[in-house]
Amino acid sequence: MYDAATDTGPADPGSHLTSPTTRAALRVQQGLLAAAREYLTGHGFTELLPPVIGPVTDPGARGAKQVDIDYYGHRYKLMTSAILYKQSSLLAFDRIFCVAPNVRLEPLETASTSRHLAEFHQLDVEMGGASREEVMRLLEELVVHMVRQVVTGLPGELERLGRDRDDFLGLLRGGFARVPHAAAVEQLRALGHPQSADTELDWEGEALLSAKSDAPFLVTDYPKGSRGFYDREDPQAPGRLRNFDLIAPQGYGELCSGSERTNDYAEIITRMRETGENPRKYRWYLDLVRAGVPASSGFGIGVERLTRYVAGLDAVWQASAYPKLPGVVAP
Amino acid sequence: MYDAATDTGPADPGSHLTSPTTRAALRVQQGLLAAAREYLTGHGFTELLPPVIGPVTDPGARGAKQVDIDYYGHRYKLMTSAILYKQSSLLAFDRIFCVAPNVRLEPLETASTSRHLAEFHQLDVEMGGASREEVMRLLEELVVHMVRQVVTGLPGELERLGRDRDDFLGLLRGGFARVPHAAAVEQLRALGHPQSADTELDWEGEALLSAKSDAPFLVTDYPKGSRGFYDREDPQAPGRLRNFDLIAPQGYGELCSGSERTNDYAEIITRMRETGENPRKYRWYLDLVRAGVPASSGFGIGVERLTRYVAGLDAVWQASAYPKLPGVVAP
Repeated sequence: MYDAATDTGPADPGSHLTSPTTRAALRVQQGLLAAAREYLTGHGFTELLPPVIGPVTDPGARGAKQVDIDYYGHRYKLMTSAILYKQSSLLAFDRIFCVAPNVRLEPLETASTSRHLAEFHQLDVEMGGASREEVMRLLEELVVHMVRQVVTGLPGELERLGRDRDDFLGLLRGGFARVPHAAAVEQLRALGHPQSADTELDWEGEALLSAKSDAPFLVTDYPKGSRGFYDREDPQAPGRLRNFDLIAPQGYGELCSGSERTNDYAEIITRMRETGENPRKYRWYLDLVRAGVPASSGFGIGVERLTRYVAGLDAVWQASAYPKLPGVVAP
Repeated sequence: MYDAATDTGPADPGSHLTSPTTRAALRVQQGLLAAAREYLTGHGFTELLPPVIGPVTDPGARGAKQVDIDYYGHRYKLMTSAILYKQSSLLAFDRIFCVAPNVRLEPLETASTSRHLAEFHQLDVEMGGASREEVMRLLEELVVHMVRQVVTGLPGELERLGRDRDDFLGLLRGGFARVPHAAAVEQLRALGHPQSADTELDWEGEALLSAKSDAPFLVTDYPKGSRGFYDREDPQAPGRLRNFDLIAPQGYGELCSGSERTNDYAEIITRMRETGENPRKYRWYLDLVRAGVPASSGFGIGVERLTRYVAGLDAVWQASAYPKLPGVVAP
C-alpha cells in the first residue's frame, strides 16, 4: 500500500529509469504533449521556446522560494512560471503556447504531498483577445483531446499502468462543471473541512473535492490576495478574480491554473503594490505594458501532474525522468 | 550594412517582438522543430523533458562559466548541456531526444561574434548502440528533413527573410563532406590562418571554412584535450576523438557537435582526471556508469544557430524571442 508520508522518491536513478512504470508514464507524457501540439497548432497557436532565467519571475507561487543566480554581476531568477513572457509574447503572435521548465524551492513538508516537485514543466497557453469563458472552453477541449489521443493511441501503456478508457469517461464527456470558489468553500465546510473564504483552497480541501468527483471541474473566482497581480479582478465583483483552477477527479487534485489577465498599466501597478511586489523590479515588463500589451486569457497545465493523473501514478515524481522532490538532494 | 562589432542585440523587447523578421524567424524555428519531432519519432526516438538544474553539468563548454545555484543548501548548477542525462536516459529508451535549454555565461567578448547567446536551446539526440558513422548519417538525414520541410512548408516566411530554396541546394543534396580535423587545420594554414593542431578550430577558422563551402560539412576527429570526457577516444588513433562538428555553409559556422560516447567506467574516470574534472562531483552519473550504461553516439544541434542559418539572419539573437547576449543585462 502506497504511503505518501514515507515516500522520498526513487531508490536510485538507475532503478527509476529502468522501471516499466517510468517508461510507460513517460510515453504517456509524450503522448499528451504530442496531442497538445497537434490541437494547439491546429487552432492557430504558435509554440515558443521560453526563457529559463530572467531579471524577474512570477511572484505568485504559493509558499515556494525563488532561485537567485548571479548573471554577469546582476541578480537574475530561475523561472517559477512563464507568465510575464506569455503576456509579452502576444506582441509577436495572437495565440502562443510553450512547454516551460520551472524551478520552485517548495517547502520541505511538500515532499510528501505526492504532488510537488521542485523542478517541473507547465504547458503554458495564452490567447489574445479571449475572455475567461473562451479560454476555459479551450482548456476543456484541449484536455479532452490530449486524453482521448492517449486512450486511443497508447492503450498498451495505459494497461501496463492499470488504467483504461473507463477511468476517463467523465473527462471524455467534456463540459466540466464550474464551481465558484465561494461554493467550494461551502462544500468543504459542509464536509467538516475548515476552509477560509479568503484564501486558496488548501491541498487537503482540493483533494477532498477531487476525490468526490468523477470528472474534472473548474473552480472559479478566487479571492483577491490569493493569486498574483496578473489575474484580473472582476469589475462586477470587486475582491473576486476572473480566474480558475482545473481540478482532476479521483483525488488527484489541481492540474492547471488560469485567468483573464490584467493588462492595464495603472491596475497592474496597484495590484503589484497590494501584493507586496516592488514595481521597480519589473521594469522590462512594465515598459511593455505601458506601451500596450493585448488583453488576453491563458492558463498553465502542470505537465507532470496531468501525467500523474492520466497514468494513475501514486506520486508526481513518477512522471519525471529525473525527479526532484523538495529538499531531497543528490548524493 | 550589418556590423557585428557594434551589435548589442534588440533596441528593446517590444520592437524585437513586433518585428516581422522576428516573427518569421520564430515561425521558421518552430517549423524546424516540428520537422525534427516528426523525423525522430518516426525513427523510434522518444522525446524527454530534460532537467534544467542538477548537482553537476557538462564541463566541456569552451570558455563559458557555469551558473551556480543554492538548492536547499547544496550547490547545484544550471545545465550547460544535457550530455550526462542523454547517456543516462538510454537506460529507459534505446533512442531519445530532447529540446534542452542551456545557460552558459560566455565571455563578454563573445557578445559580438553574432553566434553566442548566454541562454539557448539544443536539440539533443542520443542513439543507443550506434557508431559515430551511423549517428552522422542520422544527423544528415535529420537536417535535410528539417530544412526541406521549412523550404516546402514555409516559403512565405523564407521569402520575407530573403531566403529561398536555392540557398539550400547544397544542403538538400545530403551526403555532407567529412573533413578530419587535421585536414581542416591544413586548409586553414594554407589560407594563412594560424590554426593549432591540438585545439578546437577557433571561431574565425570555422567561419573561414564555412564561407568557402556551399553545403554543410562535418569536421571529424578532434584532438583529445579539445573536448569533454564523454567524447570517446579512437582506440585505433590515440589522441583523436571519435567526434564531429557540423559546420554550416555561407559563413554561418558551427551548428552541431556530436560523438561516439565513452561509456566505460575506468576510461571515464581517466578522461575526467585528464580534463581536470573531479570524479567525486559526478557521483550519481558515475554510479550509473559503473552499473552499466549502453554504448551510444549522439549530438546536439544549436536550435538558435540552425534557425539563424536557415533564416539567413545577421546574428543569432534574432532567432530568440527573449535573447540574452553575453554580458548584456536587462534594465
